[in-house]
Amino acid sequence: MEEVDHHAQERIKAQFDVEAMKVVWAGSKHNLDVADRMARLVASDPVFSKDNRTMLARKDLFKNTLRKSVHAWKRINELRLTEEEASMLRLFVDEPAYVDLHWGMFVPAIRGQGTEEQQKKWLPLAYKMQIIGCYAQTELGHGSNVQGLETTATFDPKSDEFIIHSPTLTSSKWWPGGLGKVSTHAVVYARLITNGKDHGVHGFIVQLRSLDDHSPLSGITVGDIGTKFGNGAYNTMDNGVLQFNHVRIPRDQMLMRVSQVTREGKYVQSDVPRQLVYGTMVYVRQTIVSDASKALSRAVCIAVRYSAVRRQFGSQDGGPETQVIDYKTQQNRLFPLLASAYAFRFVGEWLKWLYTDVTQRLQANDFSTLPEAHACTAGLKSVTTSATADGIEECRKLCGGHGYLCSSGLPELFAVYVPACTYEGDNVVLLLQVARFLMKTVSQLGSGKQPVGTTAYFGRIQHLIQCKCDVRGADDWLNPSIIVEAFQARAVRLAVNCAQNISKAPSPEEGFLELSADLVEAAIAHCQLIIVSKFIEKLQQDIQGQGVKEQLQILCNIYALSLLHKHLGDFLVTGSITPKQGALANEQLRKLYSQVRPNAVALVDAFNYTDHYLGSTLGRYDGNVYPALYDEAWKDPLNDSVVPDGYQEYIRPLLKQKYKSSRL
Amino acid sequence: MEEVDHHAQERIKAQFDVEAMKVVWAGSKHNLDVADRMARLVASDPVFSKDNRTMLARKDLFKNTLRKSVHAWKRINELRLTEEEASMLRLFVDEPAYVDLHWGMFVPAIRGQGTEEQQKKWLPLAYKMQIIGCYAQTELGHGSNVQGLETTATFDPKSDEFIIHSPTLTSSKWWPGGLGKVSTHAVVYARLITNGKDHGVHGFIVQLRSLDDHSPLSGITVGDIGTKFGNGAYNTMDNGVLQFNHVRIPRDQMLMRVSQVTREGKYVQSDVPRQLVYGTMVYVRQTIVSDASKALSRAVCIAVRYSAVRRQFGSQDGGPETQVIDYKTQQNRLFPLLASAYAFRFVGEWLKWLYTDVTQRLQANDFSTLPEAHACTAGLKSVTTSATADGIEECRKLCGGHGYLCSSGLPELFAVYVPACTYEGDNVVLLLQVARFLMKTVSQLGSGKQPVGTTAYFGRIQHLIQCKCDVRGADDWLNPSIIVEAFQARAVRLAVNCAQNISKAPSPEEGFLELSADLVEAAIAHCQLIIVSKFIEKLQQDIQGQGVKEQLQILCNIYALSLLHKHLGDFLVTGSITPKQGALANEQLRKLYSQVRPNAVALVDAFNYTDHYLGSTLGRYDGNVYPALYDEAWKDPLNDSVVPDGYQEYIRPLLKQKYKSSRL
Repeated sequence: MEEVDHHAQERIKAQFDVEAMKVVWAGSKHNLDVADRMARLVASDPVFSKDNRTMLARKDLFKNTLRKSVHAWKRINELRLTEEEASMLRLFVDEPAYVDLHWGMFVPAIRGQGTEEQQKKWLPLAYKMQIIGCYAQTELGHGSNVQGLETTATFDPKSDEFIIHSPTLTSSKWWPGGLGKVSTHAVVYARLITNGKDHGVHGFIVQLRSLDDHSPLSGITVGDIGTKFGNGAYNTMDNGVLQFNHVRIPRDQMLMRVSQVTREGKYVQSDVPRQLVYGTMVYVRQTIVSDASKALSRAVCIAVRYSAVRRQFGSQDGGPETQVIDYKTQQNRLFPLLASAYAFRFVGEWLKWLYTDVTQRLQANDFSTLPEAHACTAGLKSVTTSATADGIEECRKLCGGHGYLCSSGLPELFAVYVPACTYEGDNVVLLLQVARFLMKTVSQLGSGKQPVGTTAYFGRIQHLIQCKCDVRGADDWLNPSIIVEAFQARAVRLAVNCAQNISKAPSPEEGFLELSADLVEAAIAHCQLIIVSKFIEKLQQDIQGQGVKEQLQILCNIYALSLLHKHLGDFLVTGSITPKQGALANEQLRKLYSQVRPNAVALVDAFNYTDHYLGSTLGRYDGNVYPALYDEAWKDPLNDSVVPDGYQEYIRPLLKQKYKSSRL
Repeated sequence: MEEVDHHAQERIKAQFDVEAMKVVWAGSKHNLDVADRMARLVASDPVFSKDNRTMLARKDLFKNTLRKSVHAWKRINELRLTEEEASMLRLFVDEPAYVDLHWGMFVPAIRGQGTEEQQKKWLPLAYKMQIIGCYAQTELGHGSNVQGLETTATFDPKSDEFIIHSPTLTSSKWWPGGLGKVSTHAVVYARLITNGKDHGVHGFIVQLRSLDDHSPLSGITVGDIGTKFGNGAYNTMDNGVLQFNHVRIPRDQMLMRVSQVTREGKYVQSDVPRQLVYGTMVYVRQTIVSDASKALSRAVCIAVRYSAVRRQFGSQDGGPETQVIDYKTQQNRLFPLLASAYAFRFVGEWLKWLYTDVTQRLQANDFSTLPEAHACTAGLKSVTTSATADGIEECRKLCGGHGYLCSSGLPELFAVYVPACTYEGDNVVLLLQVARFLMKTVSQLGSGKQPVGTTAYFGRIQHLIQCKCDVRGADDWLNPSIIVEAFQARAVRLAVNCAQNISKAPSPEEGFLELSADLVEAAIAHCQLIIVSKFIEKLQQDIQGQGVKEQLQILCNIYALSLLHKHLGDFLVTGSITPKQGALANEQLRKLYSQVRPNAVALVDAFNYTDHYLGSTLGRYDGNVYPALYDEAWKDPLNDSVVPDGYQEYIRPLLKQKYKSSRL
């Protein structure tokens, strides 16, 4: 293909220092350098090519992923990469695989829940990948409600062993990634039973397959649970089904950091606080928020670049048609997503800080901020993943028909992303947890207990339930304190409305269930306030680079005002703003779109994604989309021959009237 | 699998005559009988099995579709099916294929745009499938803007031929279904050029492939455009790319019903009105609305049934957990979609009538209702397909993790459905057409021109821009005339606001472009009003069956009030209702959910879908989902062997430390 840059004009228009923005997006110069090196390393290695991923049958696809995984490991070793580099490299390989669960769930579970002795025994094996592990929690009949798991681990004092068993079909482990075909070991969650007493769900290290020939051990039935959404997507992963028929493991394979079973079968608690588990959840969900900004920014990058290349209508005197990105309808759908990608990036950064803070407090036995941190991360996980899943699909639609082609990269991105709305806590279930925390916060206000952290604004409840928004002209909507107060007023008032309605119910629990749809909306309002606030706080920091802060300011305002428009009903029904002020916000939003327009392509360039990572004909850096689409088409296996396989049997007889005998 | 009915308790609870509802849903007893017979015919024929569709590589998948298509044709002939039966049979085969375009676009194009002579020549060939045709309009660089197509058809008076040519890469025909590998002929849209003059886009019948050996004719490059979204989905279709290198066709292969080129190369118009083209668009879009209700109802059927089987949380004293369908959050997401499926069914039925009405008027040279009918169908196509695409994905999420498995049927349903948002008019482009019509309607009010049909309510504009909603208690929201007036007030006021803002712009066109995002919202409000109104009108008809009308009444109210809640901002910002009235609507909505709850399973049973057509482990009629999920899993090719292909090359060396040499 000829060397061109169809975006050159767009790049010249940019009013800020793109290189400086890259540093802001990456978090630091160091992060940018590592990411850049690893991305290029992967992109230049033919083994990591993603070309044919969406065209392979399941078995070929899976085998190719095994190939990539072992090659990645080989390269990590040959190049003596650091842990940070290795994890970046895996990110850019960009294909879900068993290694994700090994490093992301199996190792952390042992680290977090194993005793020192257990860590000493198992971690070196895992670090060297002499064993490969997965995380077997979810069951066929039990997802969200972990306490409802049915698998049992019964202590047998005679042999000093646990007997792991699947008593029913619905107790089959179902979904764990890496389980179906690869893992040699698993951390299995099962009901601990000693002396006939059920102590609830605990974790156990169980070997599944022979280290000699990979065959499942006696008593273990294991396989893959079948094809999933999308062409490639998660079909590179062997999500598995697992049944135990009285499988015995030594007592010391129960993860015993928090509670133990003694040789005599006595169940005892250690002095390690159970709350540590919540610390891990904060960690995992923080990574999910960070992944949300990655996924959304990729989709936005593709849609922005293609919208700048694609032209439709508006041709005058035979000149070129209008760039699609110049249409207000396109801007109105696309720019809020661009702003969201940045917003999620910064709230993710803040969550990382929060995790560190919580961890330090936990180590000092300070559990005071844990419930708030837990509610906050649960809510942010929910709000960012839902918005990202919807946003990717919106970006796909914004690319018109071509977005439906796998070569656009968008179908894959969507299909591989959407499970984030369900795993690690279903998004609606999580929002109800947030709502429960908010209701508790409201109910404790009278008792003088001061709300902390992201709920601190509830301390100003008297002001917030009756304050009036000061906006008189569209420009007033650029004032961060006005925006924050409007979002706070909306969140507080929705929460208070819910609390009042619940208090009318026969019991608080009945009221909570009856009003749960409203409670979800109150929880969303609270979470959106957090994201808006953290974006604004980020802008109060020192930010380097010509024009960089100004661009982020515009995006921050777009994020806030587009949310306000989307949830206008909330703001109006609570009287947080007036209809007139709502109209002014919309007017301001249109002005902001015009400001971001000349910078749009540069703002997605700042993500610094390689063409390999984007994997999109439409999102190419050089904008040369049409030859790319055309060339990709011919690679489809259907084009291996001009006359298709099946012509002789199924087309020719038809044309030759072999079946014609009807009255039609 | 054992014979059970896990939904028996649910079915007993139903408060209406399900058989009578089936007739209402089908449209008539006759329709129900035909659909039922054809659905069973397909379901019982092993060739039409859908079992392995999501596991096949592209070539195998495509070949299997060819096999199904020819088998369907064979059965249609053997059984001497009527046209109605044949089209139903194809529907239940439930796999996009070249035949859809042959019957749905190629034949109608010749019927609608061909002269009587042309119809006499080509239609018998097409009816017998001695030729297979497709519809080649869209180009690589040109979708929505048909007038921007680049392919040329230049008349050569010397040979009395047209020369069809693709002058650029972006002029390649791109997307036409059936083109890539199967069609022998195409209706090709190209710029007609005679004597150096461009007469705009016209249709031409062009042979593409040899009828002897299926090889492309000289000057023709044709192939498949590659993999599309989803595992099976539209990958059974050979969407194609096509380039012409000065291909010659006889003059009489231009479709000449509306305009002709004479032997001398003179371009002349016939007395057949051009508006006929709009009649065809009304027809096609009406079928799309009807398909929307089919697709949405399938997804809702799966989600409702699984939500009644699935249990999570709420277990007391070791009893069973709560059915997921009993949670208000689930009802709040699911029941509006159930109501939408019914709403779209009835508006589709009405559109069918509208098409007949428009056709009769066209035949009598009455074009007065055409613009309104055109705007109305364009808008309904947009609103119903967007809501359906979103609704299917919502149903998938409502099924939790298992909805992500292909065996749930939902990923396929989504991936195969979403193109409806883009084809036959991008949904946003269509809404802007509606908005343009609304602005015209508003501007003509002063001139005394009476708005007709679905815009007739603009005749009461004086009342509607200042009326006050009468709702005082939640029950008032059950009054159809109150609902309709609130929706009318919202639609009129949004339209008038837009018109006023446009009038402030330097020019109407600039104003229209600047305000296009608001205009889209005004158009949506207008379309939603139509759907609500047609649902209400349906209920004013005679409806047979015990309890049937009552159930539809509940669904109609849920549809209207859930829209009101979703677009609360619109209603409040225009002052169409007060915040208090909005809260009352929400309260009423919760009561309606409780009323629909015991009937939910029966209301989806009324769709009368076979398990084959649903193709879902989760949506099975008998509710026996867990054994079904388990059995499906083992059919995945990855489970052909216990130890996966690739173990020796890519897993064993890893475990055996072949690559370990790092500092990690």
